[in-house]
Amino acid sequence: MEKTDNLKWVEKKKEVIKDFKIFSACEVTSTAPDGRENTFVRLDSPDWVNIVCVVKDKNNEDAFLMVRQYRHGSNSITMEFPAGLVNNGEEPVIAAQRELLEETGYSAEKFVLIGSIKPNPAFMSNTSYTYFAVNPVKSTEQSLDEDELIDVKIIPVKEFENKMGTGEYVNAITILAYLWYDKRMK
Amino acid sequence: MEKTDNLKWVEKKKEVIKDFKIFSACEVTSTAPDGRENTFVRLDSPDWVNIVCVVKDKNNEDAFLMVRQYRHGSNSITMEFPAGLVNNGEEPVIAAQRELLEETGYSAEKFVLIGSIKPNPAFMSNTSYTYFAVNPVKSTEQSLDEDELIDVKIIPVKEFENKMGTGEYVNAITILAYLWYDKRMK
Repeated sequence: MEKTDNLKWVEKKKEVIKDFKIFSACEVTSTAPDGRENTFVRLDSPDWVNIVCVVKDKNNEDAFLMVRQYRHGSNSITMEFPAGLVNNGEEPVIAAQRELLEETGYSAEKFVLIGSIKPNPAFMSNTSYTYFAVNPVKSTEQSLDEDELIDVKIIPVKEFENKMGTGEYVNAITILAYLWYDKRMK
Repeated sequence: MEKTDNLKWVEKKKEVIKDFKIFSACEVTSTAPDGRENTFVRLDSPDWVNIVCVVKDKNNEDAFLMVRQYRHGSNSITMEFPAGLVNNGEEPVIAAQRELLEETGYSAEKFVLIGSIKPNPAFMSNTSYTYFAVNPVKSTEQSLDEDELIDVKIIPVKEFENKMGTGEYVNAITILAYLWYDKRMK
């Protein structure tokens, strides 16, 4: 481990500005190694999960089970892997099972952690975990939260690879999940 | 283009809760296709850029020019590609040139856009652009903003690939920039 004394700020005070439910916006006052002090915004957020679930398309090719929905941040429709928040105290793998089932009606034999990242270390505290669904099977119907309007789609892996970074295929967390799949499961 | 009438909410009202400088936290009230109405948080943020700059390490192998710094969101030290905010009205490529120069002292013959994503369409409005620095050269000294404490590091590409997703190599936007490099420039 390299030394970090010259880089590391120390937190001194935290004030919650507003609880937005999906995260709390806080102002954190911290002190730098050279003694200067400043205040920074931080979003304290639950951890996230998303799930790579590979099924066969109508041509018997590998395809991703994806969800197509309106996103209020980008004000646009996006194509994403099923995803959601980890409840307080919950194991991320349990959240992965729940979110896949609720958003798509699919369950799986087991869920394998294939990668994790920090969505934005500059101002977010949380971690996002990507699970791979082993031997998925359609077991029930979609069961959505009140504000969710979601279409389930089967997208060939090759189509995803051609489109990622364009149009509806621009969610950073979804494309990263693909990277873990591509490097570790393909 | 598939139809989106069944998915798309329409914005009705927006209230800025607080301007945190790096973004404004807003509450947006929107109406769903079925008439229901609800209020969602959105962070209106400038666009971002990051820069993949490949140099030779001491063994004459390809290596990334990276920056190591404390991040107030994750409360940890991270290893990232040089990055920053796009000023209002500025071309992203100009921001890429500036951020690389300020954070590392490197300039380049030209900057090629190799990918773009939405960091988080669920609640962020902005886009992040990744540029590849062609024929980079050390041309001056680091020139940092007041609150930046940044060490410049030369990290072999293979080392990055082995470590990504672990330890200091967990910034989602950095790993995505690597993906564009890996798929499009390697």
